[in-house]
Amino acid sequence: MDAKEYALKKHREWQGKIEIVSRAEVKDKESLAVAYTPGVAQPCLEIKDDIDLSYVYTRRKNLVAVITDGTAVLGLGDIGPEAGMPVMEGKCVLFKEFGGVDAFPLCIRSKDVDEIVNTIYMISGSFGGINLEDISAPRCVEIEKKLKERCDIPIFHDDQHGTAVVVLAALINALKFVKKDISEVKTVISGCGAAGMAIAKLLIQIGNKNIIMCGRKGAIYEGMEGINSEQAYMASVTNREKFSGTLGEALCGADVFIGVSAPNIVTADMVKTMADEAVVFAMANPIPEIMPDDARAGGAAVIGTGRSDYPNQINNVLVFPGVFRGALDVMASDINDEMKIAAAKAIASLITEDELCAEYVIPSPFDKRVATAVAEAVSEAARKTGVARA
Amino acid sequence: MDAKEYALKKHREWQGKIEIVSRAEVKDKESLAVAYTPGVAQPCLEIKDDIDLSYVYTRRKNLVAVITDGTAVLGLGDIGPEAGMPVMEGKCVLFKEFGGVDAFPLCIRSKDVDEIVNTIYMISGSFGGINLEDISAPRCVEIEKKLKERCDIPIFHDDQHGTAVVVLAALINALKFVKKDISEVKTVISGCGAAGMAIAKLLIQIGNKNIIMCGRKGAIYEGMEGINSEQAYMASVTNREKFSGTLGEALCGADVFIGVSAPNIVTADMVKTMADEAVVFAMANPIPEIMPDDARAGGAAVIGTGRSDYPNQINNVLVFPGVFRGALDVMASDINDEMKIAAAKAIASLITEDELCAEYVIPSPFDKRVATAVAEAVSEAARKTGVARA
Repeated sequence: MDAKEYALKKHREWQGKIEIVSRAEVKDKESLAVAYTPGVAQPCLEIKDDIDLSYVYTRRKNLVAVITDGTAVLGLGDIGPEAGMPVMEGKCVLFKEFGGVDAFPLCIRSKDVDEIVNTIYMISGSFGGINLEDISAPRCVEIEKKLKERCDIPIFHDDQHGTAVVVLAALINALKFVKKDISEVKTVISGCGAAGMAIAKLLIQIGNKNIIMCGRKGAIYEGMEGINSEQAYMASVTNREKFSGTLGEALCGADVFIGVSAPNIVTADMVKTMADEAVVFAMANPIPEIMPDDARAGGAAVIGTGRSDYPNQINNVLVFPGVFRGALDVMASDINDEMKIAAAKAIASLITEDELCAEYVIPSPFDKRVATAVAEAVSEAARKTGVARA
Repeated sequence: MDAKEYALKKHREWQGKIEIVSRAEVKDKESLAVAYTPGVAQPCLEIKDDIDLSYVYTRRKNLVAVITDGTAVLGLGDIGPEAGMPVMEGKCVLFKEFGGVDAFPLCIRSKDVDEIVNTIYMISGSFGGINLEDISAPRCVEIEKKLKERCDIPIFHDDQHGTAVVVLAALINALKFVKKDISEVKTVISGCGAAGMAIAKLLIQIGNKNIIMCGRKGAIYEGMEGINSEQAYMASVTNREKFSGTLGEALCGADVFIGVSAPNIVTADMVKTMADEAVVFAMANPIPEIMPDDARAGGAAVIGTGRSDYPNQINNVLVFPGVFRGALDVMASDINDEMKIAAAKAIASLITEDELCAEYVIPSPFDKRVATAVAEAVSEAARKTGVARA
């Protein structure tokens, strides 16, 4: 049986990768009278008087919705809401296994931004947080922005921010290893979708001044035509020299390459034109922008991919379980940039100076310490920035 | 500690009465590659080509949403969406404990019929069925009707149909005990809300020709002013003699009283005016329309209430777990009247002729046989009426 057939067989056997179980036993009249009528009226009345008590008397405090519209599922594109659900269920499994977070998968039968925003807002009182997933760009940016304005619980689009945080974590350690300062490096990002934009925004936050984002038509620059409004905004805050060449030209002298784009678009010769001690994170999945062996041939000092069969797997499973664990623990009303940066630093800090090497700038996805370290850092940042409510 | 304090304490300890757990283990690279990327792409692609396969490759086939807007929670009234959640969670516990159904609680932050309908439709691809709960009348009737038109999964408002089915089950056995035929009895229903209307509709379906519904202003009749559109419809299909008196006057000569209204509005003297061998189901909660002792003093032959401390507890926990179990088992697209009637007959049939007596016309809520019997009858009725898809 090949891997594809095996995955189908396992999914049939599981009959769903998540399950809802009872925490309250109802075996007789007496227990029914506590968990259900008439006893249940008491917590209802408490919450009526103070909605925050829904975090005390219901599952809300540990509960996140994982929501898609099915428009950008994995690399499969727009496959429809129901077809996105196996991924959402898988994500819920990871939330529970890695972060102890109860996560529930939902798909929405609309591609309209306002209809999606309204639907999620309407049910947001049922959850302690919302994780958006696999929604196509640039709609995902708009949906997240509008939801953050309307909702009083954390909204987190993992394809943007989970990726940005884990890239930042790997970059912090990679630059430490090559002894370069973030404020002085030239970074080229290949991919102007949701992930690329979120990475650029976070790098700017931590002081990376020289960033060039490249799309299919090369570098994006202020005043460029044929790009969407989100990309135009990014062009106005990156690439201050208004460089307008190809990806290959942009890479000349660059210290860092971050790929969230397409397979096989970077060559060893292109890497050779980068600065000494170059960092190459080629995260297109499953086939990266450049294979690690080629990046090494081009002289890259630190190489990372999204793949589990090479060193330095840059995977956002290191991020979202701990980020939500930390946000839920303090009843955070938001997940802000300070919390994301704190998460990245916490991940990076788990590798000691002695351990740090070219093949180990980011912990393994199965490193048990990660979620706890991220959660603590995120909770603390939430308190410091005033978004913690507990 | 009194019962109210104890209920609060237990709810705090539970930290939510439901929990989401993983059915798929993700402990290493290999299992991650099956449950998540890249393996998960295969079930996604299968569902993309045939949405019905979402019942095979995700939890959908066993999954029901329990949804409220918080406008009519227990007897507490409009307490808000979040405050209704302890009841929804309790209901989810009962779904699992009694029917093996995974049920997930949701509250909606709107009181607008179309906004509620649209929100539920939007997320309906995530579930195998929708159980509406504690939504005020007459909006609940309209919401359910509109959802049935738009959705291709079962929609069931338990306050209407769960109550109607369990009343019918009890009535079938009560009439068997007093040796009266449903087609010949006069039935008075006190309560013109969602439950009362659903009971009347189901009784009409099984041949009860003489029904009078009473509200606060007495019997409702065709042409009456000051009633809502749903009540006007009910007035046009019941009370064909256009009787316009009080509840007390309506009860004269009645064979059956069904109360889903208010405490202490029926007296022993009123029961005395009923026909011989009268059946009195007084289900206002926690204080019935007439206490069992008074109904007996009035000469009632069979007496039932909603309470666990008297015989014949008429409780819809006998209904919804088995109804959804049966509907999900055959991937039903609807829960129709035939399925409801089949459920009522299945519940009634569990009491043998030898066992049947005035104090035992309906099984105990904890009778383990009920959900299975109901599920089988509902599945069969779904197949016969062409709404089964598996």
